[in-house]
Amino acid sequence: TLQIKGIKDTWVLVSAHRMKRPWAGQVEKPPEEHIPRYDPRNPLCPGNTRANGEVNSDYDSTFIFENDFPALQPDAPDPGSDQHPLFQSKAARGICKVMCFHPWSDVTLPLMKKHEVLKVIDKWAGLVEELGTKYPWVQIFENKGAMMGCSNPHPHCQVWASNFLPNEPALSDRCQRAYYKKHGEPLLLQYARQEAEKKERVVVENSDWLAVVPYWATWPYQTLLLPRRHVLRITDLTTGEREGLADIMKRLLTKYDNLFEISFPYSMGWHGAPTGTHLKEDNSHWHLHAHYYPPLLRSATVKKFMVGYEMLAQEQRDLTPEQAAEKLRNLPEEHYKTREN
Amino acid sequence: TLQIKGIKDTWVLVSAHRMKRPWAGQVEKPPEEHIPRYDPRNPLCPGNTRANGEVNSDYDSTFIFENDFPALQPDAPDPGSDQHPLFQSKAARGICKVMCFHPWSDVTLPLMKKHEVLKVIDKWAGLVEELGTKYPWVQIFENKGAMMGCSNPHPHCQVWASNFLPNEPALSDRCQRAYYKKHGEPLLLQYARQEAEKKERVVVENSDWLAVVPYWATWPYQTLLLPRRHVLRITDLTTGEREGLADIMKRLLTKYDNLFEISFPYSMGWHGAPTGTHLKEDNSHWHLHAHYYPPLLRSATVKKFMVGYEMLAQEQRDLTPEQAAEKLRNLPEEHYKTREN
Ligand SMILES: O=P(O)(O)O[C@H]1O[C@H](CO)[C@@H](O)[C@H](O)[C@H]1O
Ligand SMILES: O=P(O)(O)O[C@H]1O[C@H](CO)[C@@H](O)[C@H](O)[C@H]1O
Repeated sequence: TLQIKGIKDTWVLVSAHRMKRPWAGQVEKPPEEHIPRYDPRNPLCPGNTRANGEVNSDYDSTFIFENDFPALQPDAPDPGSDQHPLFQSKAARGICKVMCFHPWSDVTLPLMKKHEVLKVIDKWAGLVEELGTKYPWVQIFENKGAMMGCSNPHPHCQVWASNFLPNEPALSDRCQRAYYKKHGEPLLLQYARQEAEKKERVVVENSDWLAVVPYWATWPYQTLLLPRRHVLRITDLTTGEREGLADIMKRLLTKYDNLFEISFPYSMGWHGAPTGTHLKEDNSHWHLHAHYYPPLLRSATVKKFMVGYEMLAQEQRDLTPEQAAEKLRNLPEEHYKTREN
Repeated sequence: TLQIKGIKDTWVLVSAHRMKRPWAGQVEKPPEEHIPRYDPRNPLCPGNTRANGEVNSDYDSTFIFENDFPALQPDAPDPGSDQHPLFQSKAARGICKVMCFHPWSDVTLPLMKKHEVLKVIDKWAGLVEELGTKYPWVQIFENKGAMMGCSNPHPHCQVWASNFLPNEPALSDRCQRAYYKKHGEPLLLQYARQEAEKKERVVVENSDWLAVVPYWATWPYQTLLLPRRHVLRITDLTTGEREGLADIMKRLLTKYDNLFEISFPYSMGWHGAPTGTHLKEDNSHWHLHAHYYPPLLRSATVKKFMVGYEMLAQEQRDLTPEQAAEKLRNLPEEHYKTREN
């Protein structure tokens, strides 16, 4: 058993032999395979009415609206100021948006055409541009599949912008800054170059992008998507890089779906340099990237449980990142659903 | 929406109004309610044969054995030493044990007699004593229920001892040390006293112990179990405190089961001052405690999903800790199963 050092001052336990143990535990319901293209009761479909009575436009590409049950709102009141060191709170302000990727409920990103994925990428950049003028952090994330708490099969993501830097980006900022100070180069840029040379953890690549199972991955098939050029924010991507991103996303997500021949569940999201007042600061230590965290371990129905030891002591993985990368790398780039036809 | 500051330099988002949103997402299988008392094929029952051919003793209280698929082993080889700063690893050595709580598969901790729970506590202390002579960290944890990755319904916990301080205890050590240095009193001792006075987050208490939904709880019904006296390790508990612990555990876990009238799933574990070479150091900043992390949010079948925003940005809860504490506090202390009879 090994311990692998992560980039955020923590370690992962890697015990490759644990895949040998028999599994008699929980089995998940496999993802629903037959989603109707249009469902009159689905609040995300074009032209339908949502919980708050608003009617969706008859959209034919992406569609953005404000979350009807937002975790963040623009006008939260401030708590009292005289606080004990163990009982501190502050107001959290922000805005929560939802973005549908496509008018059809049965089309996920890997099944969309490249120019349709490109539209999603352009809208992501547009939202960071727009919300980033006001908010220091704009979190784009997609919960895909019921296993990841997604309650609507229509392909969509969420965008939560906040008046504060949340824990994860704050930690990432600290670690990237410290590395830059010490080594004079952005951590993730150096990392991308190293992985592009080593190859053993690369899943897919093209001239602008690299997808790897990171050296410090905790989830079995976790991946990290990195541009090869030093890019601070999604808004800084050139047209060519956006096209390259559409290409690599489609290829990565097709491999994911092909792994167990299901619509592969995951949570994913983008991290780039902070915005708002941070736009004026030097953020050269930052490098844009997307994290993909898929829950499955053994099959379409057996996930990795991040439980007792992981919650209380340290995350532990049951196959090496190199084994996971090899498995994904060797999968076909044609989607199992289009192959069948 | 509020942000609540935790004791480990992170924040939790509390958006109490989110419970109002309708739930159309994943529904879990409720926990199995009819477990046979003895199952000839269950490798944890007395007298049965395990995967490796070993035969369990005909035990009549607790039973401890080495995990047949251990994540940690005593003899891991050392990786090479000349490592790039982004690719660092080291050997992880240790030992993994399993402890059955009771000979009967259908008896969980809240359904056990107090003197039977006391036996479990004594064995926990015994294992920390024994493994702590050699290892700096002895993690006792229980994954309860299939929802928490537990693959055997027979009541049991695990003990993983390691030759290193894992991430979570290392962070906890840092934060408790910093607080002690600044305020001259152990963080969790001061916290226990404050909560005992405030009462609003207390779930159950007795003369030696306190169970609260912590101010910074992330899981909906998370609790923290604290001794009132300054205690560094589970091995330091007096006989009276062990009896008090058996009492409060039984009461807390009965309330948990009564919440949705099921055998309540959770992961729990103990944190106390490090052991091994740390036994000789001054660890006055430490205070013994147990964490309970239950996954359920709305009902026996709808859990809280810690997914996209939580993984990528910050943990977010949908009801306040005070609401959760009140709900648990008001539940009867008689178990729904014994009430039925
Ligand atoms: O060792 P077990 O009980 O088979 O395994 C369970 O607990 C471990 C420690 O928290 C986890 O790593 C596993 O994912 C989980 O299924
Ligand atoms: O807002 P949604 O999609 O209803 O909710 C989902 O994503 C949120 C953000 O990660 C989580 O807090 C919820 O637990 C999950 O069900």
